[in-house]
Amino acid sequence: MNTLDAIYHRRSCRNYTDELVTEEEINIILRAAFSAPTAVNAQPWEYIVITEEDILDKIKEKMNFARYNAHTAIAVCGNMKLALKGQDKDLWICDCSAAIENMLLAATDIGLGNLWIGIFPIESRMATFRKILDIPEHVVPLGMVYLGHAVNKEEGRCRYREDAVFYQKYDPNRKMRKIANL
Amino acid sequence: MNTLDAIYHRRSCRNYTDELVTEEEINIILRAAFSAPTAVNAQPWEYIVITEEDILDKIKEKMNFARYNAHTAIAVCGNMKLALKGQDKDLWICDCSAAIENMLLAATDIGLGNLWIGIFPIESRMATFRKILDIPEHVVPLGMVYLGHAVNKEEGRCRYREDAVFYQKYDPNRKMRKIANL
Repeated sequence: MNTLDAIYHRRSCRNYTDELVTEEEINIILRAAFSAPTAVNAQPWEYIVITEEDILDKIKEKMNFARYNAHTAIAVCGNMKLALKGQDKDLWICDCSAAIENMLLAATDIGLGNLWIGIFPIESRMATFRKILDIPEHVVPLGMVYLGHAVNKEEGRCRYREDAVFYQKYDPNRKMRKIANL
Repeated sequence: MNTLDAIYHRRSCRNYTDELVTEEEINIILRAAFSAPTAVNAQPWEYIVITEEDILDKIKEKMNFARYNAHTAIAVCGNMKLALKGQDKDLWICDCSAAIENMLLAATDIGLGNLWIGIFPIESRMATFRKILDIPEHVVPLGMVYLGHAVNKEEGRCRYREDAVFYQKYDPNRKMRKIANL
């Protein structure tokens, strides 16, 4: 698939068939994650591929917001022992977010439905997730990507908003836009 | 270009020719930014397209780390009046990072060199950038993307690391990996 098509047509998928994701597909998606930019080449990311049904069931049982019927999940974590220090310490969030976006686009490209489940920075979500997956305190789960075959393929949508684009400088006097569906 | 090729071949570009980026190219890249996922559909992002040489010169004069010879930059900001509140308040960082990654991939796709310049969370960088571009306090510049025609096209590289991938659960006892080039 063409890159712009994948970018414009990526949609969150919340309903999956029982067809499994293959090992080859998982590897394509992991390689995409590792191709993301990373500030000062810190590469603070770590990935946990989850395909065992009892672990997925436990996640869905304990985490209401993650109750979707995918059979494959990849958790994306930042390892604070590898992350930058000092003023730069939060840049792992950017690195891991870019990695997740690459995963979603790679999945879209190869015809897989996908969904970004946010875990960080909500303490209760992080604590539950850490417990289920034996994740130590110095490793922070940013999110989890569900992968599978979509029951319904949704059309892309364009959220371009003229009022969120400025030219040359910001205009603090421009009237505040409203997000219609919030 | 194929999505996976764009993902695997995206590289930071630090040397640009004098050929200008067209308005059409800028619009393709902005549309890609707006197509990123955004938690709870908050769409907290705002973009500033900078093509005026005196503004670009001021940025380069005041910000050492941004001294590259691109003639187009797009700043990506999070507007805290649009961002989620409470525990979710930092999720704008994820949204804006995903938007930047889309921009880099769209640029790669249409043959433009690109570079992600980090601004947030470094206070001095944010203060300088805000002053040059009239950005108010409730708007946080996450970063800036330089765009242009690369003098040298670099090959892609694979940073896949087996020791950063776990299966089913994390293994806290696995030996810590080292990043060779840090």
